[in-house]
Amino acid sequence: MGQTEPGRRERKKAATRQALSRAARDLFLERGFDNVTVAEIADAADTAVSTLFAHFPGGKEALILGHGAEREEALAAAVRNRAEGVSILQALRDFLATRGPFDPDPDPLSRRVADLVIATPALRAYARVLWTGCEAALAKVIAEQAGQDDFSVRLLARYVLEIPDLAGTEPDPSAALDAAFAFLRRGWPGF
Amino acid sequence: MGQTEPGRRERKKAATRQALSRAARDLFLERGFDNVTVAEIADAADTAVSTLFAHFPGGKEALILGHGAEREEALAAAVRNRAEGVSILQALRDFLATRGPFDPDPDPLSRRVADLVIATPALRAYARVLWTGCEAALAKVIAEQAGQDDFSVRLLARYVLEIPDLAGTEPDPSAALDAAFAFLRRGWPGF
Repeated sequence: MGQTEPGRRERKKAATRQALSRAARDLFLERGFDNVTVAEIADAADTAVSTLFAHFPGGKEALILGHGAEREEALAAAVRNRAEGVSILQALRDFLATRGPFDPDPDPLSRRVADLVIATPALRAYARVLWTGCEAALAKVIAEQAGQDDFSVRLLARYVLEIPDLAGTEPDPSAALDAAFAFLRRGWPGF
Repeated sequence: MGQTEPGRRERKKAATRQALSRAARDLFLERGFDNVTVAEIADAADTAVSTLFAHFPGGKEALILGHGAEREEALAAAVRNRAEGVSILQALRDFLATRGPFDPDPDPLSRRVADLVIATPALRAYARVLWTGCEAALAKVIAEQAGQDDFSVRLLARYVLEIPDLAGTEPDPSAALDAAFAFLRRGWPGF
């Protein structure tokens, strides 16, 4: 029984996180991000505001956008575990193409969330902060995979992570994503 | 005499601005940016703190880095007034190459200021904000000069303005600046 306790605690924590995220998402979609308070979200998830901030120190933005560590790990894995013959830039394009405004075939709920993020300046800005926070980790995995660690790698990592903020607001986000990577592939032919 | 009054007021304002900027620069260089208060700067320039903030709403960072409008105008002019046969990207490289950490032959005081900005996270961050704030103006002048106004122009403007933050901290900033523009010229051969 001593062994199951930590498992139960973890499950309870995950359930609370999920309840808060879902309550936030539903309220934001219903009334707009700026018109919902953390107190209302905590209330809808049947927790205290202090519990909300314990789980989401980043506050309202983090409730719907998650945290940077998830992106960092997923980005690094996309580059490191890419299939034979797939370039680093292709792997990064393919990874971004599945997310948020670039998802070509989202379920209706995901599409509404992506539209909300694009239309809400605070959420767009936070999403950018989460991506740009991955810069060092992305530069590291590119350097490791390309076998070169220099300024060109750091510049490439920054340029890749600037793409979502800019391409996500274009009329056709997926086409803009592809265009951005076409420029980078010309600039960095070895990657 | 009614006509000279506005001129005198403008001169006095300019003199106050300059006294504040010089006092800030000298104090920052002597003791480090983080160890100097706005009260000390106002005192050294023989003005009130409220006067300091009236002239520099951006506070300590603005005192040494100036404001975005100056950069915006200078950037646009560099592209618009470039010599015959000089590409847009070449004009932008040449313009940045004269500034801050990229100046190949700075006077000793300018070099100390550039080193201070690079070594002080708050100043580096503020300098980046000033540059990125020029994005719309730069995209506009590139679009006008290239005769095309699309996503590729917006992406190029952002990528150019990200260069100073990243290249400025390299061991050889000028070489990094050149390398960054070499990538952009390959990616955007028409510019």
